[in-house]
Amino acid sequence: MPIEGDIDDLPKIEANHTALTPLWFLERAALVHPQRKSIVHGSEHYTWLQTYRRCRRLASALVNRSIGLGSTVAVIAPNIPAIYEAHFGVPMAGAVVNCVNIRLNASTIAFLLGHSSAAVVMVDQEFFPLAEEALKLLQEKSNGKFKPPLLIVIADAICNPATLRYALDKGAIEYEKFLELGDPDFAWKPPKDEWQSIALGYTSGTTSNPKGVVLSHRGAYLMSLSGALVWGMNEGAVYLWTLPMFHCNGWCYTWSLAALCGTSICLRQVPKSNSQGCVFSYSRPGGHHFCAAPAVLNAIVNAPSDQTIIPLPRLVNVMTAGAAPPPSILSAMSKQGFRITHTYGLSETYGPSTVCAWKPEWNSLPVETQARLNARQGIRYTALEGLEVVDTKTMEPVPADGTTIGEIVMRGNAVMKGYLKNPKANAEAFAGGWFHSGDLGVKHPDGYIEIKDRAKDIIISGGENISSLEVESILYQHPLVFEASVVARPDERWGESPCAFITLKPAADDSSEKGVAEDILKFCRAKMPAYWVPKSVVFGALPKTATGKIQKHILRAKAKEMGAVKWSKL
Amino acid sequence: MPIEGDIDDLPKIEANHTALTPLWFLERAALVHPQRKSIVHGSEHYTWLQTYRRCRRLASALVNRSIGLGSTVAVIAPNIPAIYEAHFGVPMAGAVVNCVNIRLNASTIAFLLGHSSAAVVMVDQEFFPLAEEALKLLQEKSNGKFKPPLLIVIADAICNPATLRYALDKGAIEYEKFLELGDPDFAWKPPKDEWQSIALGYTSGTTSNPKGVVLSHRGAYLMSLSGALVWGMNEGAVYLWTLPMFHCNGWCYTWSLAALCGTSICLRQVPKSNSQGCVFSYSRPGGHHFCAAPAVLNAIVNAPSDQTIIPLPRLVNVMTAGAAPPPSILSAMSKQGFRITHTYGLSETYGPSTVCAWKPEWNSLPVETQARLNARQGIRYTALEGLEVVDTKTMEPVPADGTTIGEIVMRGNAVMKGYLKNPKANAEAFAGGWFHSGDLGVKHPDGYIEIKDRAKDIIISGGENISSLEVESILYQHPLVFEASVVARPDERWGESPCAFITLKPAADDSSEKGVAEDILKFCRAKMPAYWVPKSVVFGALPKTATGKIQKHILRAKAKEMGAVKWSKL
Repeated sequence: MPIEGDIDDLPKIEANHTALTPLWFLERAALVHPQRKSIVHGSEHYTWLQTYRRCRRLASALVNRSIGLGSTVAVIAPNIPAIYEAHFGVPMAGAVVNCVNIRLNASTIAFLLGHSSAAVVMVDQEFFPLAEEALKLLQEKSNGKFKPPLLIVIADAICNPATLRYALDKGAIEYEKFLELGDPDFAWKPPKDEWQSIALGYTSGTTSNPKGVVLSHRGAYLMSLSGALVWGMNEGAVYLWTLPMFHCNGWCYTWSLAALCGTSICLRQVPKSNSQGCVFSYSRPGGHHFCAAPAVLNAIVNAPSDQTIIPLPRLVNVMTAGAAPPPSILSAMSKQGFRITHTYGLSETYGPSTVCAWKPEWNSLPVETQARLNARQGIRYTALEGLEVVDTKTMEPVPADGTTIGEIVMRGNAVMKGYLKNPKANAEAFAGGWFHSGDLGVKHPDGYIEIKDRAKDIIISGGENISSLEVESILYQHPLVFEASVVARPDERWGESPCAFITLKPAADDSSEKGVAEDILKFCRAKMPAYWVPKSVVFGALPKTATGKIQKHILRAKAKEMGAVKWSKL
Repeated sequence: MPIEGDIDDLPKIEANHTALTPLWFLERAALVHPQRKSIVHGSEHYTWLQTYRRCRRLASALVNRSIGLGSTVAVIAPNIPAIYEAHFGVPMAGAVVNCVNIRLNASTIAFLLGHSSAAVVMVDQEFFPLAEEALKLLQEKSNGKFKPPLLIVIADAICNPATLRYALDKGAIEYEKFLELGDPDFAWKPPKDEWQSIALGYTSGTTSNPKGVVLSHRGAYLMSLSGALVWGMNEGAVYLWTLPMFHCNGWCYTWSLAALCGTSICLRQVPKSNSQGCVFSYSRPGGHHFCAAPAVLNAIVNAPSDQTIIPLPRLVNVMTAGAAPPPSILSAMSKQGFRITHTYGLSETYGPSTVCAWKPEWNSLPVETQARLNARQGIRYTALEGLEVVDTKTMEPVPADGTTIGEIVMRGNAVMKGYLKNPKANAEAFAGGWFHSGDLGVKHPDGYIEIKDRAKDIIISGGENISSLEVESILYQHPLVFEASVVARPDERWGESPCAFITLKPAADDSSEKGVAEDILKFCRAKMPAYWVPKSVVFGALPKTATGKIQKHILRAKAKEMGAVKWSKL
């Protein structure tokens, strides 16, 4: 008996419908906790009222230069206050913020700035020469047709003053001077449509050109709340910026911290382990939350004991993502007093969007079992409404048996708007109504998903799939292994066979590598099916991308060229 | 230098845009914590998996009866599992849930059911006769034209079996039987448009017909997250249902608890203070969060000491709203170990939507000062994007001076879609692009708002505004006052003058009321401007609405008829 239907006839009006945008969080933080510290950077710090006023100055100064809707502002900087401010000031002007990975080379940055038609480049003084070179390359490539962006140099008292003078001599405007041109009471407006773009971030693009991931105000708002919720971050959280803000906008925690009226502790760079004692550095500034790639966790776990402060002064919450951390690392971190939240996601999903939600019933399990369960990628964030593992051909969900491998696909508000100017990549990424992660995994009987490999990293030996991640995970259990990466090598008999690249811990005696190789293979034979056991072991430092990911395509090339030797050096 | 604009050209598609609805939370809770308790009701309890399956059964059984988009399902029940389930099962069918205040009389309920064209009435067995009478009245009024709704009776083992038999004899279908007709794997879908209505709730309507407040899926989603955030409710929170779910859908905590995979502890009714020791009841079931009107807090504070368990077994978080609680009560609760979060809102704003956010700098202040600061209505929730105090004529914000009175207005995603079938009320409520709360207040220099009175409750004496709330707040500080309400009485000389209605604490000696009245007036003269001091004091029980609000219009009528006496009995 449906009624007249008028219960759904009430329209959206100005009073009851507002665009979702994280910019609201900043306005609110300045109102609720004007005097609370928003950002700490060494001896420099700001309050929420100051941050709000500085962001409005930035927006106003940009608008004065006709930067607004449709414009892109590139930021090339480590974790310093200005890059945090750009996350609010740039969208307040209606523009899109594009944080550029500072580890990229000039030619890649030239591509990015050209592709995004950057109207402004904000660059940290240390990285000015890099930006300068990139812009020079871009001018050359475009035959001088690319309109030079407005160049803003961000001074940092920590850095060598000579680099600032150099930038100023080259005609860049100093960031603080630029802010002074803006109005601290600038009357910003939320976007008319919450689907409007807020941020652009480029994937690392190991083999092809980087792809520009475009994110919306709506998605950023929802993910900032969702990311706080899954991690149990409360009002006033103190967050240590080990994770670069240029990685998916700091996994949206830039914006979450404004929602929580929390405090950001900046780090220009993460202290190197084995030299400065990173565990100490993590806990000392009072940060009780930080994010770290498994490589950083590995460094913490393997820090020399004289540089490790245990017990920690308080519970430190660590979120890790980026690759499946081996259970051995999760277990060791947990024993050292860190509470690990394991998440998974991609630039295309605003950073992590699945979490291995901890279940109270795991508390009574042995720590190794806990670590194994916690090494899974888990279940969806509240803002990711769909997460499935599907058969790559039929797109049907695979059975939740923990063994049938399929592709991990996602859908919902935590999925990007799409790639910028790349219809072909969009068609592939969104085929069949889902976003395709490109990761292969399984679904366990408890509904948790687990990555088995990147689609391109799986090893097919004698017709059987071998997950390179699973072999690596066992290699990490060997007491002498610091880092391990396993790739496919062409194999006359089996089609492909696994080849292991390993970095040993400093304690391992270099002179006996052959013996170590034998020992590792023996270890493998005891712990995995015979066809998984690497046919070769290669020792040396592993090649990594600017974002710290191991470059398997380089290792694959090495393995191919190397041929069937039992052990070798890189 | 705006670019081509294509950075905003990427469309919303199935993979990256999903309607916001709290229904996603339930699906996720069942996936993440299938075995965790969702609802506890006496010795009965459910897990999240069971709740999800029961809600899908309900949705499926409703759809089988052609209940869906545009239909309204009324629920007349105290806090029992079925009313919780209706918050998910009904919207899963596409319909709108209307929880009816069980303290209303049959003729008001008849109006509600007719106005909302209820297609289904779900009623707790104890309230069946009430629903039956309401439906009979409705048939009479409509001359038999109102199509009788489907009648579902909810059995509760706690109740007298005779009331259930009575309902079944009258042809009602038993709720559990109805669920059995539904499919536990029903493939529910999110609404096509998140603006779709999810819930309807009627205001108490003291003088005119109740107004039907319509809420959207979008608003419910955003407010459930916002309400958890402002209260620091984390994953797995245990919530004690002292607040009726029929009050603004339990201030959206029905849905928040699914987002948090938390546990609901049902209470058919709040234990009466002075008889069963409500503090004990609140803390015993392990609930660490509950909401309560100031009247309940008053009862806790004034509970006889043999019924008060102090110290509490753990920190208990109390959210209070509904009227400004006097600082004396806030202070006493805080001393007893409750952490009070003071919020403010209306049915029209999904329940509370402003919070008196606690500032760390208040920690060092005297407890009475803390209570005074915390008695303010505060600042906006994250989901309420606009909160202002405006001049009622010009609609311009009043100065933030803590003294200039204006109307409290709101705008944003936490504001209702509108009143059902009431264009006139909508035009008034939304005049000038804001929602008009009808409450008068001030804005303090720190940006926090404070209610001074309901627009109609302000007393105008000799041309001066007197806030009845402020006079009441001082009366509550008197050691013998249990409850106080101050209204305007016509006054030949001053136009209006304040008249106080007071309930004394049981300890007060009835025989000396005249002396007590003198003492109270003396107390007032010492603490407030002379023109604020009530001209009369009337002792007795205060008349209250079904929702527990003091009915000032009745008191005003009494005051008028009573004339200028110095003290009296009600």
